[in-house]
Amino acid sequence: MKTLKVIKIGGNIIDNEDALQAFLKEFFKIEELKLLVHGGGKLATKLANQMQVEVKMIDGRRITDAETLDIITMVYAGKINKHIVANLQANNCDAIGFSGADGNAIVSGKRPVKNIDYGFVGDVKQVNTKSLELLLNNNITPVFCAITHDKNGQLLNTNADTIASELAIALSKIFKTVLYYCFEKNGVLKDVNDDYSVIESITSENVQQLIDNQIISEGMLPKINNCIHAVNHNVQKVCIGKPEMLFDKNSTYTTVSK
Amino acid sequence: MKTLKVIKIGGNIIDNEDALQAFLKEFFKIEELKLLVHGGGKLATKLANQMQVEVKMIDGRRITDAETLDIITMVYAGKINKHIVANLQANNCDAIGFSGADGNAIVSGKRPVKNIDYGFVGDVKQVNTKSLELLLNNNITPVFCAITHDKNGQLLNTNADTIASELAIALSKIFKTVLYYCFEKNGVLKDVNDDYSVIESITSENVQQLIDNQIISEGMLPKINNCIHAVNHNVQKVCIGKPEMLFDKNSTYTTVSK
Repeated sequence: MKTLKVIKIGGNIIDNEDALQAFLKEFFKIEELKLLVHGGGKLATKLANQMQVEVKMIDGRRITDAETLDIITMVYAGKINKHIVANLQANNCDAIGFSGADGNAIVSGKRPVKNIDYGFVGDVKQVNTKSLELLLNNNITPVFCAITHDKNGQLLNTNADTIASELAIALSKIFKTVLYYCFEKNGVLKDVNDDYSVIESITSENVQQLIDNQIISEGMLPKINNCIHAVNHNVQKVCIGKPEMLFDKNSTYTTVSK
Repeated sequence: MKTLKVIKIGGNIIDNEDALQAFLKEFFKIEELKLLVHGGGKLATKLANQMQVEVKMIDGRRITDAETLDIITMVYAGKINKHIVANLQANNCDAIGFSGADGNAIVSGKRPVKNIDYGFVGDVKQVNTKSLELLLNNNITPVFCAITHDKNGQLLNTNADTIASELAIALSKIFKTVLYYCFEKNGVLKDVNDDYSVIESITSENVQQLIDNQIISEGMLPKINNCIHAVNHNVQKVCIGKPEMLFDKNSTYTTVSK
C-alpha cells in the first residue's frame, strides 16, 4: 500500500503570498503521494466588501446566502485554487484543482435549519474516490477547495478541515493515509499563550481527559474531533502544527493517533 | 480508435440559465467520449461593474490587466465552471473542471506587445493530453474554461474557440476527434440576415473563394481560420451551428472538412 499525505492549509498561508510560495516550493518535494486541501482565508470577505455584499456572521460563523455562495465559489474554486495549481505546475508538481462536484468527489447535504439557518452549507455525506485514485496513481496531485455539491446541481460551502478528514478517511481504503493540519501554531498547546507548550501526543484514549481538564479549548475542539474521527476510521495518524512539520524533521508538533 | 466530441459553447448558452439547463440535459446523453469548452459570456463584465473595475476594450477586444484577470479567473474557473460541473453531475455525467493550468493541459505564452498591450492574454504553445486521456478513457468528461497558464505560475486569458481547436488537434492523436462550435446562428450564412442561408459545406479548398467573395465576413473569419487549422491537423471535421446540431439529426449546420 502506497503512503498518501493529505495536507490542509488555512488562512495563515493562503492570505500571505510569501508564505504560500515558500510552502509550495517545499510541498512539491514531498516524495509520497499527496493531496492538498485549502481553506479560503480573508479574500472572500474582501471581495464581499468590494461588491458591497453584506457579510452575515452568527456566533463567528459565516451565513452562506446565494450571493455569498457565489462569492465563495469565485474566490475558493476560481482565484485561490487556480493560483495554487498554476504555482504547483511552475514547480513541476502536476496538479488538478477540485471542488467536491468535480469527479463527484464529495457529496454533501444542505444543513437542516434548526435554530440558525446557515444557508448553503453542506455536511459531507459521501466521498467518491474513483477519479482521485486514478490521478494519484499517476502522480497527479488533487488540490481541493472547500466546496461540495448535493448531486442535484447545488454547490455547498463546507468546512475545509472536515473535507480534509473525510478525504483522508475515504482514501485510507486504497492508501496508507496520514493527515496534516497546518495552522499558525506549533500544535495543540497546554497554554495557549506559550507556543512551546506543545502536547506532542493525543490519543483517542487521553483526549477526553484533555477536554475535561479544559486543556483542549473550545476553538480547538472541532479540529480535535475531526482528528479523532479520522484515526478511528483507518487514518494512520493526524499531525497538527506549523507547515514546517512537513519538511523539518526537528520540528515539534502534535500527533493524534488511535 | 474511439470517437471524441469536443464541444464549445458560448455566451448565448452560458448567459441563459434555461438554455444552459436544456443543453446539459441533452449533452449527457451523447454516447461518444466528450469534452466541453465554455466561454465566459457577460458575467465577467457584470462582476467588473459591480466591483467598479473599469472594463477596457480596444477594437472590441478586452484588455486583461491584473484586476481583470482576477475577475475572469473567478467567473470562468469558479462560478461558471463549477456551476456546469455540478449540473452535469446532477445529470449523472461524471465531469471534472479544467483550466489550462490543471494537469498542465494548456501552456501558453503571454502575447507580445506590438501596437496594443492586451495584458494577461495567452497564445497557446503546447497541449499536454496525459490527464485528459486518463479521464476520458474512464468516461470522465473534462470541462474547460478559457484560461491557460505559462508554466511559470502566471494564468492567462485565452480565446475559447482556440482552446477548443487546440484541444481537438492534440487529442486527435489518441481519438477520432470531431469539433463542434455551438453559437446563436444555424451555421455560416450566405446572407447574415437570413438564418436559413446556411453554407452546409466548407472545405480547405473552397474557403479562400468564400473569403475573397466576402461571403465569410470579418466577424466569422477567426472562427473559420480555427476550423481550417483544425481539419488540416487531423481533426475529422468541424461543425458550426446551434446546439441542436448535436442532438437533432434533421438540423442544418455548417460542416468544415479538409
